[in-house]
Amino acid sequence: MDLFKKCTDFITVEEYKGLGLYPYFHALESKQDVEVVMEGKRQIMIGSNNYLGLTGDKRVIQAGIKAFEEFGSGVSGSRFLNGTLTTHIELEKELASFLRKEACLIFSTGFISNLAIISAIAGRDDIIFCDRENHASIYDAIKLSYATMVRYHHSDMKDLEKQLQKADPAKGKLIVTDGVFSMSGDICKLPDIVDLAKKYGARVMVDDAHGFGVLGERGRGTAEYFGLEDQVDILMGTFSKSLASLGGYMAADRHVVEFVKHKSRPFIFSAAITPANAATALEALRILREEPQRPKALRDITAYMRERLVQKGVPVVNHSIAPIIPIYTYTMLRTLVVCKLLFERGVYVNPVLPPAAPEGACLIRTSYTATHTKELMDEASDIIAEVLKSLPESDEELMKIVQNHE
Amino acid sequence: MDLFKKCTDFITVEEYKGLGLYPYFHALESKQDVEVVMEGKRQIMIGSNNYLGLTGDKRVIQAGIKAFEEFGSGVSGSRFLNGTLTTHIELEKELASFLRKEACLIFSTGFISNLAIISAIAGRDDIIFCDRENHASIYDAIKLSYATMVRYHHSDMKDLEKQLQKADPAKGKLIVTDGVFSMSGDICKLPDIVDLAKKYGARVMVDDAHGFGVLGERGRGTAEYFGLEDQVDILMGTFSKSLASLGGYMAADRHVVEFVKHKSRPFIFSAAITPANAATALEALRILREEPQRPKALRDITAYMRERLVQKGVPVVNHSIAPIIPIYTYTMLRTLVVCKLLFERGVYVNPVLPPAAPEGACLIRTSYTATHTKELMDEASDIIAEVLKSLPESDEELMKIVQNHE
Repeated sequence: MDLFKKCTDFITVEEYKGLGLYPYFHALESKQDVEVVMEGKRQIMIGSNNYLGLTGDKRVIQAGIKAFEEFGSGVSGSRFLNGTLTTHIELEKELASFLRKEACLIFSTGFISNLAIISAIAGRDDIIFCDRENHASIYDAIKLSYATMVRYHHSDMKDLEKQLQKADPAKGKLIVTDGVFSMSGDICKLPDIVDLAKKYGARVMVDDAHGFGVLGERGRGTAEYFGLEDQVDILMGTFSKSLASLGGYMAADRHVVEFVKHKSRPFIFSAAITPANAATALEALRILREEPQRPKALRDITAYMRERLVQKGVPVVNHSIAPIIPIYTYTMLRTLVVCKLLFERGVYVNPVLPPAAPEGACLIRTSYTATHTKELMDEASDIIAEVLKSLPESDEELMKIVQNHE
Repeated sequence: MDLFKKCTDFITVEEYKGLGLYPYFHALESKQDVEVVMEGKRQIMIGSNNYLGLTGDKRVIQAGIKAFEEFGSGVSGSRFLNGTLTTHIELEKELASFLRKEACLIFSTGFISNLAIISAIAGRDDIIFCDRENHASIYDAIKLSYATMVRYHHSDMKDLEKQLQKADPAKGKLIVTDGVFSMSGDICKLPDIVDLAKKYGARVMVDDAHGFGVLGERGRGTAEYFGLEDQVDILMGTFSKSLASLGGYMAADRHVVEFVKHKSRPFIFSAAITPANAATALEALRILREEPQRPKALRDITAYMRERLVQKGVPVVNHSIAPIIPIYTYTMLRTLVVCKLLFERGVYVNPVLPPAAPEGACLIRTSYTATHTKELMDEASDIIAEVLKSLPESDEELMKIVQNHE
């Protein structure tokens, strides 16, 4: 059998392209911001994770430029060997201090962070308890770790307790959860999780990719929001959302960080994060520290948008305070048509289709930025409401729209 | 059992730090270049993968700065959704054309590239034939792919054929090999590999992290060197070596690239490479295309250094034309002492210790840059020869040096 048969058999993309419904890889021609130019067209951007609006901030850009001038374009090696910069160490110190942990280690991407942390900290003799809706990188990390994976129903604390009860007491145990779940925007039940962890001798790791810079008075994330920073053993987060760069971190007790630093294959065998990526994350962190009004503005504008959408009869999925508002579009066809019509009218959103959503429960994920204005939200919510109202109920009628549209 | 017991038990690092022999995480205070400042001290850098010397090139730095000004610090999302930039597409087109393949896909790191490509292209019904000395990221990628892994002895074509013969003809087959092996610097036996692949219906993937920009008249890598570019199904490479940035790519037939683009979890669920990282890789690629004298200068300076080392009686491991010269230091203690003494005398090299090298066959890995001068090579080779000659034979005598040194 030819290994590439699966590639020649794969024709879904061509089908959707043929229908003019292909929603992916629209190319940005401007900075990522609250308004962007995509394929020659202005779009209100409510489909990025640029939560604090810092990707175009002058101070952040200046920090990146300075890093290029001082340290060049890359370090050509792993942190372990020839690739550690003073900037890396500075960022690790400031992150540890901000997050109130003894130590911190940074990685070149968020995906690699989870692989690097989990595959080092858990092994054959350990069990990892994983929320079913955790991010893909956590699943892949558990696979790499050789630990036993036990999945529990999404935020179902009874199920988590049942699984913990059944587990062999001789094994090491780690409960891993997203702080804010990336698609639905709901917040994990951290108080229950840390209680159960204590009761059953497990450690707790929170992937706060979508909580850092977002939740808590100072934007320190899900653990700050619940007042439980000293109860979470490993805080993980990324630089590609609130911190306007690319990368990730772990913050924990020093001996845990030191262990990962010396035992983690994805860390040791990866080239280091570039000078500019580290420097921009550091500058964004400093801005977050100085401007706690940013996470507040983000929560306020999200609440405003949510209210507008509800008022206009848009089927909003949840009522979390996180800056993610999913909107039900149910079928795959309806979802793709909505994305296409919104794009044509200048509103960029993301489709969530199977396998990321169950069949019949597809949605569009909208997400917000601290620098979004009420005017932009009014415009976007009007367009969303109008597009949703304009659509016929049945897929057959929808197909007619698609075909007439060509 | 506490999950973190392994961390409290881990004391090796403290022991080596106590002896003053800890060789890792020396912090750079300057650009990565042929000479650097590390921890306040000038070092001749023969421990980076900055093969073409472009990390400090003015044109590359200018391209990074321009990307910051035009596109900001990051895109806050995956390539798949809101994170594709025109720069990404440009880089993919120019890489595909340079490498003479139909299409190309870029990733945010080299490690993620292998995970993304291999875990998408191979599944439960496939077998991957893996050279024992392949890079760690290939092993981790195979683990993620669910394919069956069959390892063959390093560059042993008889063993590879034996394994291929034994394999189920109904299964998809992929032979994966490093182009240039990263620790030893030896080049894979590509002509035999492509012959065997044809004979047994397997596809071939070359990880050319250390071959791209290095081998071949135009620096297109291992496949160009052997005149076999049309025989390799998937060319993979990284941006953190010759291309002076951070990231990686695959180049292949269009339908294979399209498949990975839509099916690869580590690609789809990762934030995109930053504007500056893509722009610097693109500028470095253009420089490589315009200046084929760079790979030639790299081969020449490596040959010069190798000759110098051999003349001075240094135990050089191999005689590859790749810009990696490993030097035997045999025991772990000797290796650490050599690294320490070289660092003190201003020559930065990397130790290769178990498990990366077999017990008793430890070495120091030295690697070269197109912009290294003969003067620097004379200085470095003198120091290496002197340090090696000055050392006693036995570990006991070595320990005395270490202790007197404190």
